[in-house]
Amino acid sequence: MVNVKPLNVRRGMGISELVEAMADTAFNARRLGEAARIYAEMVEKDAFIFLAFSGALIPAGMRSIIADMVEKGFASCIVTTGANIVHEVAEALGYRHEKGDARANDLELSRQNINRIYDVFVSQDAFEGIEEFLARIIQEMDGKMSTHEFIREIGLRLPDKESFLHIAARKGVPVFSPTLHDSIAGLHLSIYSKDMILDVIKDIRKMVDLCFQDGAIGTAIFGGGVPKNFTLQAMLLAEGFDYAIQVTTDSPQWGGLSGATLEEAKSWCKLKSDAKAVTVYCDVTIALPLLHAYLVDRFG
Amino acid sequence: MVNVKPLNVRRGMGISELVEAMADTAFNARRLGEAARIYAEMVEKDAFIFLAFSGALIPAGMRSIIADMVEKGFASCIVTTGANIVHEVAEALGYRHEKGDARANDLELSRQNINRIYDVFVSQDAFEGIEEFLARIIQEMDGKMSTHEFIREIGLRLPDKESFLHIAARKGVPVFSPTLHDSIAGLHLSIYSKDMILDVIKDIRKMVDLCFQDGAIGTAIFGGGVPKNFTLQAMLLAEGFDYAIQVTTDSPQWGGLSGATLEEAKSWCKLKSDAKAVTVYCDVTIALPLLHAYLVDRFG
Amino acid sequence: MVNVKPLNVRRGMGISELVEAMADTAFNARRLGEAARIYAEMVEKDAFIFLAFSGALIPAGMRSIIADMVEKGFASCIVTTGANIVHEVAEALGYRHEKGDARANDLELSRQNINRIYDVFVSQDAFEGIEEFLARIIQEMDGKMSTHEFIREIGLRLPDKESFLHIAARKGVPVFSPTLHDSIAGLHLSIYSKDMILDVIKDIRKMVDLCFQDGAIGTAIFGGGVPKNFTLQAMLLAEGFDYAIQVTTDSPQWGGLSGATLEEAKSWCKLKSDAKAVTVYCDVTIALPLLHAYLVDRFG
Amino acid sequence: MVNVKPLNVRRGMGISELVEAMADTAFNARRLGEAARIYAEMVEKDAFIFLAFSGALIPAGMRSIIADMVEKGFASCIVTTGANIVHEVAEALGYRHEKGDARANDLELSRQNINRIYDVFVSQDAFEGIEEFLARIIQEMDGKMSTHEFIREIGLRLPDKESFLHIAARKGVPVFSPTLHDSIAGLHLSIYSKDMILDVIKDIRKMVDLCFQDGAIGTAIFGGGVPKNFTLQAMLLAEGFDYAIQVTTDSPQWGGLSGATLEEAKSWCKLKSDAKAVTVYCDVTIALPLLHAYLVDRFG
Repeated sequence: MVNVKPLNVRRGMGISELVEAMADTAFNARRLGEAARIYAEMVEKDAFIFLAFSGALIPAGMRSIIADMVEKGFASCIVTTGANIVHEVAEALGYRHEKGDARANDLELSRQNINRIYDVFVSQDAFEGIEEFLARIIQEMDGKMSTHEFIREIGLRLPDKESFLHIAARKGVPVFSPTLHDSIAGLHLSIYSKDMILDVIKDIRKMVDLCFQDGAIGTAIFGGGVPKNFTLQAMLLAEGFDYAIQVTTDSPQWGGLSGATLEEAKSWCKLKSDAKAVTVYCDVTIALPLLHAYLVDRFG
Repeated sequence: MVNVKPLNVRRGMGISELVEAMADTAFNARRLGEAARIYAEMVEKDAFIFLAFSGALIPAGMRSIIADMVEKGFASCIVTTGANIVHEVAEALGYRHEKGDARANDLELSRQNINRIYDVFVSQDAFEGIEEFLARIIQEMDGKMSTHEFIREIGLRLPDKESFLHIAARKGVPVFSPTLHDSIAGLHLSIYSKDMILDVIKDIRKMVDLCFQDGAIGTAIFGGGVPKNFTLQAMLLAEGFDYAIQVTTDSPQWGGLSGATLEEAKSWCKLKSDAKAVTVYCDVTIALPLLHAYLVDRFG
Repeated sequence: MVNVKPLNVRRGMGISELVEAMADTAFNARRLGEAARIYAEMVEKDAFIFLAFSGALIPAGMRSIIADMVEKGFASCIVTTGANIVHEVAEALGYRHEKGDARANDLELSRQNINRIYDVFVSQDAFEGIEEFLARIIQEMDGKMSTHEFIREIGLRLPDKESFLHIAARKGVPVFSPTLHDSIAGLHLSIYSKDMILDVIKDIRKMVDLCFQDGAIGTAIFGGGVPKNFTLQAMLLAEGFDYAIQVTTDSPQWGGLSGATLEEAKSWCKLKSDAKAVTVYCDVTIALPLLHAYLVDRFG
Repeated sequence: MVNVKPLNVRRGMGISELVEAMADTAFNARRLGEAARIYAEMVEKDAFIFLAFSGALIPAGMRSIIADMVEKGFASCIVTTGANIVHEVAEALGYRHEKGDARANDLELSRQNINRIYDVFVSQDAFEGIEEFLARIIQEMDGKMSTHEFIREIGLRLPDKESFLHIAARKGVPVFSPTLHDSIAGLHLSIYSKDMILDVIKDIRKMVDLCFQDGAIGTAIFGGGVPKNFTLQAMLLAEGFDYAIQVTTDSPQWGGLSGATLEEAKSWCKLKSDAKAVTVYCDVTIALPLLHAYLVDRFG
């Protein structure tokens, strides 16, 4: 038996030191500490890392972290929602998300052409800029394009070279968005695409290929939804992940995939039976910066 | 001001009478009662109703209810996950989901070729049967097919004429699954499709068309994820929903779309400013049967 | 293995029939069905039943159900919060809780002397009436009184003979409120008590005594907090509960007692190792009426 | 309008710098940053601070932080559960909580005399040690004792001078536990108390007195339950808190007090209408160390 070690905080304490100490406490602090250790081991062992994230992380101010994770090699490929792609395009084009109030009057906001994402506001203008930018790309393209091919074209054309989409394109890190159509980009594709067709099945073939490479394979899943399932199901045809960490605010007892435990994933052989795995129940906006800071301290 | 009316239960009380009485209580009982009234008004006013559902409802024993909702006209179109399509195919082919234990040993289960969905077990055999069935259809098809066209072909071929997929196909009720590829069916499409291509953008065009019809338009959203967003975003180009009910176990304060309030949707003009709308925080497996029973009592 | 049985809803279906059918589905519908069966078995076997409830159930319109449960013998003793006692006094004195809006402007409400409990409003007047009523009783009493003795005095004096406090007093069903002081009643006791002293330790002795009686002993726990823990801990000195059902919206992964599983309670021997136990994750305002209706149909 | 500022993490970043940067993001990271600023302002303005905490924080390894908060003046008084008092006594007597597994077999544990608190194990031995220690104190005492007087006696006698109970006793910081009887200590009081009586109403008088002092008054509430309500209700007779921060994993939509917003508390005048207040939705084991580190960096 190992004792819970009461956590000591001291002046000027570093983030990674705190996260490390959390691993010897309990509940979700312990899980966060364990997740940090597993993520560090993935990086250390040079595992191929599928970084999946859903929820409005880009509007919420997490884009520099995602960019840095791609830049520093903490993500070998990305799987995310269409909304995160679209909002990243907005930021990379110079539009900004504003700090808003979750209790704002939504009718008032709609009259001011402001869209609300919980406590973040985004002006309708941004969507016009996105449309202009995407329409041009869509009209240039032809043939069957997977989402990762299409997103690569977006990344290459973005004026902001610090955008994670640009960095990923430059470094050859594929960015999958199996639900790209479930976003404003989908509406734009429905309006402007002529010669190109979005081929989401092509994405699956690529994902499955990536699951068959040599060496250790891991995944870091932030939030649930399609990014989580699409990442895990790609392993159904392969050997199972060696590592998996999951940060979520959903719970197992509702029966859905978003809240499902990583143990459940073992029954499906999506994880190897001896995979190192841990779930942290926490808002991603809190857990992600802590985990990234931990990695940066060790590998930055 | 209107008083909270203490709820009186009596012997032999009917479900709809109880749900009606709940509308005069508080918290989620009140919201459930209000949701029932709004749903009934949608049916009464002959609104076009988008029924969106996510989460493992088919494995959880809700398939007869979904089928009955389509049969009785409580759903004018359906938007659901790939997993629900796949598991419905399994049931319609005669495979069964088993009552399991959420605390089962998942390594043990994987050795027995049993896959776990919280407290439901499903044997690997079922997936072989699904593959055989789907492979044949995929190989027959050609050209660009939206998910609703492809799912219609599935529905027409199912041996079980009580399946909601068959009933929907027979009645011309479109079934959209914008994440069909995010399921076993996606893997099968990646293996067996040659001449056909799954065209998810085509689905958007059809969804948007449906949002432009005359008369009232409403939506009943069970769970979050892509089915929720895909339904709501189709309205971005049209006038907004007149009615919306949502049943979810997610919460607004995590900032994601699944837990977002219907008020927030008004800032985006996805709902009309005067739309009748209510969110019920409850497991769908409890709320859906109650709401359906309420409708059946009134319109059945 | 037993199949999940797709739930069939039909016109005029009774509540207990629906709840019974839920036991063969999954997730929380199944758990609700199982809880109903366990509760029915407790009644059938004439078990001594500790009914614990927390959360604002009385303001939420559940008082007639609680009263009926005491009247019909579905509760052999009650453990609840001070707030529920106080709000029951208000209702029994003729004050009413109003249907409010959870998004109301709270500063506006405070200016109107309206207090908000989520979507229920209660006027400041009610508290003046309660104070007048309780002050008189407090001043009459003397000596060391346990909460159940004091609450019995309240129940006997209430003008509303349908109040669960009156029915319990009449039938000799003890009502414990180990946190009576954590409510307006506590403030009143701090102001008006002279010769009496609230002796909460005396409650423990009585609770422990009740845990030592012959025959089966069970508990039905609605919500968490002190009522849950106080009920369970009384068993630490005795043999453990034979039956336990729990309805909660809290989750195990936060580590608190309110969300703790009934399995965890077995490690403490609060439940017998072979106790029949189930937890339903659901708003009590929805689950309680369903469970009570089930019992009334069978035993009413 | 103010922009969301994408969070930049760099090598060797300090905790307080990260928390400060979070205030310019969104969701619960923003709320955590705002809570840190409000807490810092309370300390800076020399406000009287009620520190309320519930949930098994002591077993979870948070005891050194609580001790340090008392030592450094971040808490002017404490309100907590009986369980936290009892488990602190165990640690201060030299017993240890062990790192356990939340999925352990609870029947197995009970056979080994191990009690489980989610993923923490505590041996039955500890409770024997606590009983011996408390029995002696209980037998020494006489007359009406409030919980804070009784807990002061405990603190003075503890061999571990680093225990928050000892530090609080030494510094004259009152520690209230209005639910002390809702813990093992309650059982011991029921067995060993002869001449003393636990007078919980006396605590209320003291709490109300503390609410009437000059200068700013604030509260930091970690978790819900009685510590939250007992702290807030003491203000019903006074002017309302000037500052309030709350960290919780409960949600408003269930209607209970634990999940209630601080806005709701304004309708009751428990907070001043212009009080600075924020709620962070996060596991306390993660948020508390971050907040404390922020304060230590600024005031340590």
